[in-house]
Formats: sequence, C-alpha cells, structure tokens
Amino acid sequence: TIFEAVVAALRPGDLEGVTVMVTAGPTREEIDPVRFISNHSSGRMGYAVARAARQRGARVILVSGPTGLAAPAGVERICVESARDMQAVVMEHVKECMVVVKTAAVADYRPAERKGDKIKKQAAEMTLTLVKNPDILAELGRLKKRPFLVGFAAETSRLEEYAAQKLAEKNLDMIVANDVSLGDAGFNVDTNRALFLFRDGSRQECPLMSKDELANRILDQIASRLPAQRR
Amino acid sequence: TIFEAVVAALRPGDLEGVTVMVTAGPTREEIDPVRFISNHSSGRMGYAVARAARQRGARVILVSGPTGLAAPAGVERICVESARDMQAVVMEHVKECMVVVKTAAVADYRPAERKGDKIKKQAAEMTLTLVKNPDILAELGRLKKRPFLVGFAAETSRLEEYAAQKLAEKNLDMIVANDVSLGDAGFNVDTNRALFLFRDGSRQECPLMSKDELANRILDQIASRLPAQRR
Repeated sequence: TIFEAVVAALRPGDLEGVTVMVTAGPTREEIDPVRFISNHSSGRMGYAVARAARQRGARVILVSGPTGLAAPAGVERICVESARDMQAVVMEHVKECMVVVKTAAVADYRPAERKGDKIKKQAAEMTLTLVKNPDILAELGRLKKRPFLVGFAAETSRLEEYAAQKLAEKNLDMIVANDVSLGDAGFNVDTNRALFLFRDGSRQECPLMSKDELANRILDQIASRLPAQRR
Repeated sequence: TIFEAVVAALRPGDLEGVTVMVTAGPTREEIDPVRFISNHSSGRMGYAVARAARQRGARVILVSGPTGLAAPAGVERICVESARDMQAVVMEHVKECMVVVKTAAVADYRPAERKGDKIKKQAAEMTLTLVKNPDILAELGRLKKRPFLVGFAAETSRLEEYAAQKLAEKNLDMIVANDVSLGDAGFNVDTNRALFLFRDGSRQECPLMSKDELANRILDQIASRLPAQRR
C-alpha cells in the first residue's frame, strides 16, 4: 500500500543487520484430544510488529500460536500450539536474536494431566487441576547474554502498577501495557492504546492508533535504544 | 462451481418449504475476561450442512459459535459465544424448525465462576471448578413437538457404542458418528468419514468423502425420512 511505502521511506532500514524475534498469538493447552484452554489473543499486535520490523530491514523470526493470520512477507514463521512448544522454539533461537518482542499471550497454566481419550461427561461438577506453565519471559530475562527484551502487559485493572512490577520482576528493557477492558484496545480489534515503561524509569503514553502504527512506535524506541555498535 | 450446479440439478429443491436449524462450531466458556475453555471444532461440517440445505431449497437458521468462516449465501446466521448463549437462541427458534442438525461441539462444562478481572498468576497449582452446561440436544429431545433431530458424536474410542447410547438417551432420530482420532476425519480437515445410526435401528456407513458431500448424504437421509405431508 501507499501507506506502507511511505512508512518504509521514512524509516529506511534502521533495523538492518538486526535479528528480531516476535512471539504472537495465544497458546492452547490441551485438556484432552478435543478440549483446550486458550485466550482471546488474536495475534494481530505481534504480526504488526513482525511486519513492521521486516519493513525496517530486520531479519524477523515470528513464533506464533494458533491464529488465522497469514505470515507477513519475508518473515520466518514457526507455528506452535502450547506454552511448552513455544518455550522450546524461543530458547532454541534466542541466541541468534538481538531483540525479543514477546507479544504472545502464553497460557499461565495448563491442565496437570492431558487425557488421551475424550473425557466423558458425567458428574455435575468437575475439578480441573492446573499447573503453572514455564515463564518464558522470565527465563529470557535471566539469560547471561540477554537480548533487548520487550514484554507486554494486558490488564483489566491497575495497569501501570502491574506493568511496572512485571518490568522489574522479569528484568525487561521495555514493557508495553494496555488495558484490554477497553473496547478499542487489546484483543481482536485493529487499534490499540498503550503505555510504554522503560528499565531506566522513563515512561511514554501512546494515544489510540492502529496496531501497525503502534508497532512502529515500539520499534522506534527499540531502534533508538540498541547499542550503536551492534546496529 | 460446476460441482455445486450439478449437485443442485441432481437434488432439485427437495427441502423446499422446510426450515432447518443447524448449530455449528465450538462454544467458548470464559474463565475470566482473557481466558476461556474451548475445543477444536472448526465449524466446517455444520457450515457444509447449512450450505447444502440452502442449496436444496430449505430456509436455514445457522446458530454458530466462534469460527473464522463466512456465512453461506442465503443462510440466516446467529453468532453466539457460550453454551448458554446457544441454548437461548436454539430454544427461541426451534418452534419454527422441522429439522435440527446439531453439529456444534458445545462445551460440556463451564467454569463455575467467571472472574470479572484477569486472574493473576501466583500459586504453582490451581484448581478450576467446572459445572455442567445445559444439554441442548437432550432438551430438544424432550420437547413435546419435537423436530426431526440429528446429533453428532465425535469420539476417540468405542465409536458405535457411544453413538448408539447417545441416540437413545437423547431421543434423536439420527446420529452421525465420527472418529476424531483419525487424521482425515473430524476437526479442521475438509474430509470426513462417518457412521449413521437411526432411531429404527438401521445403520449406514459413509466412506471418506468431502464434508460437502457428507452434508448432502446426511440431507438425503433427512429428506427421505420427513413425513410426506410436511414436505
């Protein structure tokens, strides 16, 4: 499109030579061969970041949970189902990456046991025991050779407080916080509004804009904060 | 397509004057504003039945859970999320319908409580209490003025046994049983193989074929079994 051409002209390859990993979409945690636990992430924000990073010259590895979206041109997409699948792929490729943008809504919990056959409906009540999934972002934050690490916080209340807490706890460089209880932000819509918080304590508010434009605002911040010798 | 034109010519409006309700897709049962329980149903089998019934002259009401599919031309689609949403819509419209084909993979259970805010991840283990959802098919089977009722059984083992049990228990006229553990049948594929069981004890096996063709085989059976004066 004309818009994309203009964007590309305005930001001429400022991510050339940089490998960016983007994780996107939900994960699915199977209860049995038929049922699973998932979440409302559409993957659109992550796909927008992957597309924009590629347009700005980066090599892009997109690790994607199940979405109905087509892979952006020129992006290396690896499709996964569960949080543990995603963990394996991310940890395998992180050494190649200078930047990791983790937009995926990874399931925090999975069923303790996956039944091999479909569970028959019987009792009026049933309890499902869930166990915590690996925390991929925290694992990345603990790496000795850490990439520039960008997390997302989708919250329905106390947005800035939770986001700041996540930034510190997971040892991130930047966090993009958005309130998914608003109708024009978050899941399954084409627009988003966000708050950026940084490791150095600075903050920036982004008003309502398209996910494509927000993706570029995020990449502006990343590009300006990468060590000069690595770019 | 030429194929659809040939099909239409071969079966000229044998469902004219008949209103058919088709339920399709999965349901989503929310745990909190972000997470839900769902299943692998793509909705393709139900959409194929709806499309074929319309091509054969029926008025079609398609009650659909969340899928990425477009509504077939001429079909009245009503979109729903949860099992209870689906129940309300089905029970509202059933009086208008001579036939109900229930392909939807309705969640058997839902979380006992839906949290208003996103649950924060804390404990290493968590239990989720699930309660049984309304059984829409059984409720239809108990109606005094019952439509011609077709159910589906997606199983991973003991296919015929479970299907026959469901046919009897839910007071159905016909059940379409398929083994979703096979790679070429069931969820997210364009083909299916199935076993038809009927109230009168007869049975018919359908070999591997496209879901569109299987839809027409199902409608052949329905059309031939509707009381003559109602057609």
